[in-house]
Amino acid sequence: MSNPTAAMLVIGDEILSGRTRDANMYYLAGELTKHGIDLKEVRVISDDATAIVAAVKSLSAGYDHVFTSGGIGPTHDDITADCIARAFDVAIDVRDDARAILAAHYATTGTEMNAARLRMARIPDGAELIENPVSAAPGFTLGNVHVMAGVPLVFQAMVASVLATLVGGQPLLSQTLRVDRGEGEIAATLSALAEKYSDLSIGCYPFQNNGVFGANVVLRGADGARIDAATTELARDLGL
Amino acid sequence: MSNPTAAMLVIGDEILSGRTRDANMYYLAGELTKHGIDLKEVRVISDDATAIVAAVKSLSAGYDHVFTSGGIGPTHDDITADCIARAFDVAIDVRDDARAILAAHYATTGTEMNAARLRMARIPDGAELIENPVSAAPGFTLGNVHVMAGVPLVFQAMVASVLATLVGGQPLLSQTLRVDRGEGEIAATLSALAEKYSDLSIGCYPFQNNGVFGANVVLRGADGARIDAATTELARDLGL
Repeated sequence: MSNPTAAMLVIGDEILSGRTRDANMYYLAGELTKHGIDLKEVRVISDDATAIVAAVKSLSAGYDHVFTSGGIGPTHDDITADCIARAFDVAIDVRDDARAILAAHYATTGTEMNAARLRMARIPDGAELIENPVSAAPGFTLGNVHVMAGVPLVFQAMVASVLATLVGGQPLLSQTLRVDRGEGEIAATLSALAEKYSDLSIGCYPFQNNGVFGANVVLRGADGARIDAATTELARDLGL
Repeated sequence: MSNPTAAMLVIGDEILSGRTRDANMYYLAGELTKHGIDLKEVRVISDDATAIVAAVKSLSAGYDHVFTSGGIGPTHDDITADCIARAFDVAIDVRDDARAILAAHYATTGTEMNAARLRMARIPDGAELIENPVSAAPGFTLGNVHVMAGVPLVFQAMVASVLATLVGGQPLLSQTLRVDRGEGEIAATLSALAEKYSDLSIGCYPFQNNGVFGANVVLRGADGARIDAATTELARDLGL
């Protein structure tokens, strides 16, 4: 049986303007790989309602799971929850369980529950809450879409909460062979190997270090013994 | 007149598997912002021909420019050029001008021009070459799609080559105000400001530092004086 598939939707102008370098995509990709869920696509879009609704619909229909990050805070640019409700055509309002979580948190920190903070208790009908052990305001899962915060610490905590509830597949295993030769030198050998081991994914990632060209060959698959065999064969074929 | 729009397509399993943290998206986003081209969307997809062709068609139709990175080397997993040709329904073959560039480069480095390296001279009909001052093998522009290498040093050099040929718009300017208060505290003030300065994009990016919550408020727009005015007003409203 093949692994479940997933897409990620990163919502926020800060990545597209070059202000912030992505961290959540990198984190989620690693966690999904360990969990045996195949991340097939990532989209980064801006805080634009039409774009968010269209992307959620498209990705939700195309993959087993969709993970979103960003846009669920208390400020005017936090429009993700409302867009998810629109994408699934359900109502959204402040929900009692979410409000209770926020109220309990603010009581311990002596923070006032104002109208802006209450917005974070707006949850689409039919969604399940995702726990936020860092700053209380919950994420939620609606259908196959998991809606999480953009702040990396909170995002990571929510990913842990969600992954604990999902059935994964076989973790993707990999081995890397570093070759200090140009890609063009080893391409024919790699091509033959990829044909023989068609159950593995064999990628070649060139690098340049002080003017010297080399490549990392990464062999990926679910079967460790096959990866071992292919890596050994490759090293022998290249005379390493 | 509004700025030209752009999308980026990152091609490669290494980002989706969590092996590599993206660098090219971050670089391109910053360069486009300086150049007055609005990056509206980024997609990351795997080395899969069907996915690449579909994404190129969709993004090419939706934006003024599309920038791709990855998959134009000499190995079996380098399928981008062929996919671009398919997306535009044009033929692709080794082209004399590209072969001459490679031949000259390999002559100076004493490298053999083999079948794998010759693949890098495969250019779709009608494309213009993009110069690669780092390692010679060119990228190309076909229609509104700019096809570049994934190795960051080469990618960056090609971006410089391409941007020199494009008409940009007004650079996106920005100011950031750091506020050491939770987002929920300043949300109402921000909301009123965003309504008053609807020509600006005002984003609020929360952070957490040693348990203390704060937010960076980023004001973006083409008119520096308006950004100044809004930032001053915000600082005053927040008593900073």
